[in-house]
Parts: sequence; C-alpha cells; structure tokens
Amino acid sequence: MLGNFTYCNPTKLYFGDDSLKYLNDELPKYGKNIVLVYGGGSIKKNGIYDEVIEILKKNGKNVAEIAGVMPNPTLAKLYEGIEIARAHKADLILAVGGGSVCDYSKVVAMSVNCDEDPWEKYYIRFEQPECRIIPVGCVLTMVGTGSEMNAGSVITNEKTKQKIGHAFLSEEIMPRFAVLNPKYTLTLPHYQMIAGIYDIFSHICEQYFSGEDDNTSDYISEGLMHSLIHSSRIANKDPQNYEARSNIMWTATWALNTLVAKGKSTDWMVHMLGQAVGGYTNATHGMTLSAVSLAYYRHIMPYGLQKFKRFAVNVWNVNPEGKTDEQIAKEGLKALESWMNELGLVMNISEFGVTEAELEDIADVTIILTDGYKTLSRKEVIEIYKESL
Amino acid sequence: MLGNFTYCNPTKLYFGDDSLKYLNDELPKYGKNIVLVYGGGSIKKNGIYDEVIEILKKNGKNVAEIAGVMPNPTLAKLYEGIEIARAHKADLILAVGGGSVCDYSKVVAMSVNCDEDPWEKYYIRFEQPECRIIPVGCVLTMVGTGSEMNAGSVITNEKTKQKIGHAFLSEEIMPRFAVLNPKYTLTLPHYQMIAGIYDIFSHICEQYFSGEDDNTSDYISEGLMHSLIHSSRIANKDPQNYEARSNIMWTATWALNTLVAKGKSTDWMVHMLGQAVGGYTNATHGMTLSAVSLAYYRHIMPYGLQKFKRFAVNVWNVNPEGKTDEQIAKEGLKALESWMNELGLVMNISEFGVTEAELEDIADVTIILTDGYKTLSRKEVIEIYKESL
Repeated sequence: MLGNFTYCNPTKLYFGDDSLKYLNDELPKYGKNIVLVYGGGSIKKNGIYDEVIEILKKNGKNVAEIAGVMPNPTLAKLYEGIEIARAHKADLILAVGGGSVCDYSKVVAMSVNCDEDPWEKYYIRFEQPECRIIPVGCVLTMVGTGSEMNAGSVITNEKTKQKIGHAFLSEEIMPRFAVLNPKYTLTLPHYQMIAGIYDIFSHICEQYFSGEDDNTSDYISEGLMHSLIHSSRIANKDPQNYEARSNIMWTATWALNTLVAKGKSTDWMVHMLGQAVGGYTNATHGMTLSAVSLAYYRHIMPYGLQKFKRFAVNVWNVNPEGKTDEQIAKEGLKALESWMNELGLVMNISEFGVTEAELEDIADVTIILTDGYKTLSRKEVIEIYKESL
Repeated sequence: MLGNFTYCNPTKLYFGDDSLKYLNDELPKYGKNIVLVYGGGSIKKNGIYDEVIEILKKNGKNVAEIAGVMPNPTLAKLYEGIEIARAHKADLILAVGGGSVCDYSKVVAMSVNCDEDPWEKYYIRFEQPECRIIPVGCVLTMVGTGSEMNAGSVITNEKTKQKIGHAFLSEEIMPRFAVLNPKYTLTLPHYQMIAGIYDIFSHICEQYFSGEDDNTSDYISEGLMHSLIHSSRIANKDPQNYEARSNIMWTATWALNTLVAKGKSTDWMVHMLGQAVGGYTNATHGMTLSAVSLAYYRHIMPYGLQKFKRFAVNVWNVNPEGKTDEQIAKEGLKALESWMNELGLVMNISEFGVTEAELEDIADVTIILTDGYKTLSRKEVIEIYKESL
C-alpha cells in the first residue's frame, strides 16, 4: 500500500538560459550580509562569478566569501566556513556551484547558530537542527545531486575517512530558491557530466529498488529513467546539446527531492558502498556509484526478483516472452550495464587505486542499511567490493 | 527545447489514512476566525464534518460556514460566500470537499479584500489578484481536479451559462496545506469515481498533446498515465481497494500542479469543449471531458501525428512494427477508447440531453485556444460536438 507521508517542497526554482536575472527578485528578500560559497574557481574562469558579484553589488549587498569548497567537502573546511559565516553575520548563504557547494552551504547554515559540533550532531547522531537556520540560495553549475531542491547534505571527515550523508527533515533546510541555467553545465568536463548522469540514475534506482508495493512513485521513477537514458545518449555524443543538458538538469532535481520516495521504502545501499569508497579514495561521487552498482544489484536480485523483472520490461523494454523471471531480470541488468559502458562510466573500484588489501578498511566505514531486499552482512559487503575490483 | 520557466509549489500535503490529525499542527498558524466551506452535506453523513468541527473547537476557533457549494459552483454562490467571509473577518478558509469546494474557496479568498467584481476581473479579464489573499486549507474528499495543490479555479456563471477556469500565477493562491485521506474517497459513488479518474487522465493528456519537443515533462506524464491506467482498472472492479484509490489520489495531485507542463506548451481544448457542455447542462465535469475527448483527438491527430504515435507506443504498448505512423496513432486512440469503455465513462454528449439544435449555442460559449496542434475554427468546434453526440 501507498504508505502515509507528508510532502512539502517550497524551493522556488528559476529554470532556463536567462534564469540568473531572477537573483534580482530574490536578493531584496534578505538582509545585507551575504556569504558567497564556491568551489575551485571554475566560476571565475567561465564568468559566472563576475555576473553574480555584479548582481550582488547592484543590490547593495555586503559580501564575504568561502572559496575552495572541494568536491567531497571536508569537516575542516566546514569548521572554517562556519567561522566566516558567523563573523559576517550572514543573512543569506549563496551557494554557486554543484552539489558539494550546495550541501556544504546547508550545513554551514545549520551550524552558525548551533553550539554543538556539526559532525557529531548531524552525521554521527543523525539529529535535526534546533537552532535558527540561515537561509540558503543556490546557483547551480553542476548537475546530479539534486541538492538544489532537497534537505540533504554529505560531508567527509578526512581524518576518519568517513563520508556520510544526512537527509534532514525540515523544509527550512532546503534552499529558498535555486537558479538552474543549463548553459552553466555545458563547460563541465565529459567525465564530470557522465558521473553526474549516473548519480541521477542511481538516485532513482535506490528509491525504486525497494519494496514490492504497487506505488505511483515507481511509475514516476520509470518516466524519469526513460527521460534520463534518452537524454544521456544525446549528451554523451553531443555535450553541447542544450536540450539534452536541460532535460538532464531537470530530471536530476526530481530524482532526489523526495517525490519518488513518497509512500514507499527506499534502499540507499549503493550510496553507502560508493560513499565508503569515496571517503577512502576521494574519487568522483557518481563514479564510485557506477563502480559498485552492478555487483550490488546482481547480489540482491534474487531477493527482489519481481522488481528487477519490472525494471527490465518497463525501463529497458526487455521482451519477457518465453523467459523465466530470472532471465528477464538478468537481461535488464545487462541492458543497464551496456548503457553504462556506452556512457564510459567507471565500472571498477580498482580504477580509483583500491586494492584487495584495503577492502577490510573500506568495509569498516561502510554503513549497512536495512530497508533493501537483503540486509548485507559484513562478509557480503566485502564480497561486493571484491566483485567490483 | 525545454523552455524557460519558474516552479514553486509550497503546499504542504498530509497524505494517508490518519492525515486529518495534522489539522492540529496547521490550525495554530492562523487566527481565530475560520470559514468552513463544504458541499451538499455528504460530509455530515460520513462523519468527516463532525471530526473537523471537533478539531476546530479543540483549537479554540470561531467558525462560520458556507454550506451547499454545488458541483459547478455558481457566481451567485460565490457572491454569497464572499459576504460570509467578509462578515466573519476570515483568517483561514477551510475547504472540506472536492475540487469544486476547493476552487470556490480560492476565489472567495481572492475576493474578500477586493472591490472589483470577481467574475469580470478573474474570469472575463483573466487578471491576477492584487488584494490581500486569505489563506486556504483543504481537506480533500473527492479526487480529480488537483485543486488541492494548484492555483486554479473554475466558476460557472449560471446566467450566461459560461463555465470558465483560470490558472492563477501566484503561489499565495495555492492551499497552504491539504489533507489527503484516501479513505474519504471510498464512499464516493462509482459514477463520480470514474468521472474523477477521467478528469485526471485528461489533465495529463492536455499537457502532453502539445508541442513536439523532447521534454522530461512528457516522460513524467507517461509514468503518471501508466500508474493511473493500472490503478483505475483495480478500482473500477474493486472500489474499496485502498491501495488503488490512494495511488489515484496521489496521481491526481501531480497531474495538475504545473509539474508536467514545465518547459512545454499545453493545449486545454478538451477542457474548453467539456466546460462549455458543463456550463450548458450542469453535467459532471469529468464526464463532459470523456464525452468530447475522442472526437477532438481524432480531429487533431493528423496535426500532431508523432505525439499520438508516441502515446500509442509508450502508453498503450502498441507494437509499431510494419505499421504506418497513422495506423500506430489510431491504434493508440482505439486503446484509449477501449479503456474508457471498460471504466464505463460517458462517451456521448447526448447522454446529458444535448441535442444537435443546441450545438450552436454551446459553440457560442466555447473558448477557443491556440496552443494545440490545430487552432479550431467555429465550424470545427461544431463538427467535434456533432461527432460527440
């Protein structure tokens, strides 16, 4: 049955090739003190930084900056950012970048008025913020995480090599607004683009591959998967195709803003496996997911056979006639594998330099979830990593 | 290309068989004066009225009532409601009912502080409200219109026999919250249930059958259609099936809350044709749509052949091999027709008592839209009505 739930997603999205201008509508809603957050400086090369600064100045804002937020934002960087936001008495935190920058901005926003250690509170004890949260706005320049319209955030503790995500519950943690301009994604290297595409696909799959209920969410997921597969093939050959890139951007938002999880169980185990590898190697997030996915899905397939069969038929158009459920399900995973190869995704964790000797250590920081078709033992986690080598 | 757009949908939804209790979370956010709006009194028979009144009393509210809102809310009733809400100094308008009650509550909310005539302003001149809008909350008891999470509203001018809908632009017009309890829909007569199902399907189709662009929205629409077709077949045979009814309820919300229209053109001509018949005959909304749909789609099919072909293959699993595009598209409409017959929908406007002699009068109040595959002439409108007789 469609379980009980609440849904609220008030983020205001401005989508399109002229969407940055809407910053002028949003900025007057907040006080003078803006903390601008960005990554390694690519926004300075492609001109987005200058455009944003010009709009901030025109709106009479007093700007402090947190620069150099890395792809897997670290705890040390988080502490640094909290201090900057506190000193600046931030009225709005404006994230300009991809999911890492946006994730990071949310935790800064939740930590400025909080005395407790954010790592302990949010990522170890998985608590919700009780303090006043600073509003966050987002100008998105990379696609994949859906962070622009959700309350999720992932942080890496570089000392313990733990990369942990927390899907917070309050709408107040979601960005108040997000500017989505597909043009900003056109300059992204191919590797980052396809990593983002697989991150999106994995978000959908991880909400899809759990439960056997009859649920509208699974049908919406199938629609999103069809859209993504279709557009990814166009973008893979022609990365400058605005139409394909804009469809990918829009699909990413809906793949992880809670909609397709409503009323059903979910299984984020691929993210747990991938994030453990990511915390250990600092590899690109989407690629850590692609490298562990197939081994995981092959492992759990017998426990969720009907869903894998449905996936084969509804998503990959596998003809079920004259075949056993298992054969159909396997053909679906084959089709997934061949699409992944077509895109050029990383298919093995050895490509990140992981060796068999390290698997025990990675297993040590792998969080094991219990809502999937099969709750993994530590032995099974290591087996899956071995098959992913 | 995916066109430029903004998206914001802040309505908080409480979904499930225990969702009414969340009224206790929402009511403290508003002042003491509540105007309770409902329809013909079925909520008094099934106990929902008593439950709501108890919660309102417990929260110390001062309640005035607008009872007897009819299925096609009239202008006279609107004037009456505005006076009641003004006299009561309403802090919140609480709609308990289906789309008509919710639509009606929104216009009352937009008119209380407005000096102008709401019919002239909102439905003839299609203006936006400039006055302060009273917040609206909704307890949904019928499914179909999506009014619980959008800014749309339809009113009938009983004197001129015009039934006109307006999709307002501001998020402020959307209900602040909506309680969606699938159990409340179980007591609905079969006729109303299937009319609601077709209303939902038509909402999706009318956003789908326009434009030839490659668009994520169309993929989401296909997912929603699959879900609805699937659940409608279960509910048609077993109306007490909670799972099917809850999936239908959730699909209805997403079929008309602007999501599947994002970045593309839409064609609401089936609603224009159906509403003209509805204004003239006072027939059930969803049935007026089913009665005119097929004639309209057959008429415009040659102008949007690729989309009708896609509809046949992606929604109805028509095997395209060895067939012309036209044959495939026609098979899709045949499949749609047979599903409609299976549900037991009204397939002809003569069932509402419409005769050929009246078609000119109905054409007089039919609004002709221009964003579809073919902008109809008056002659074509009459032809379509004739074919629907």
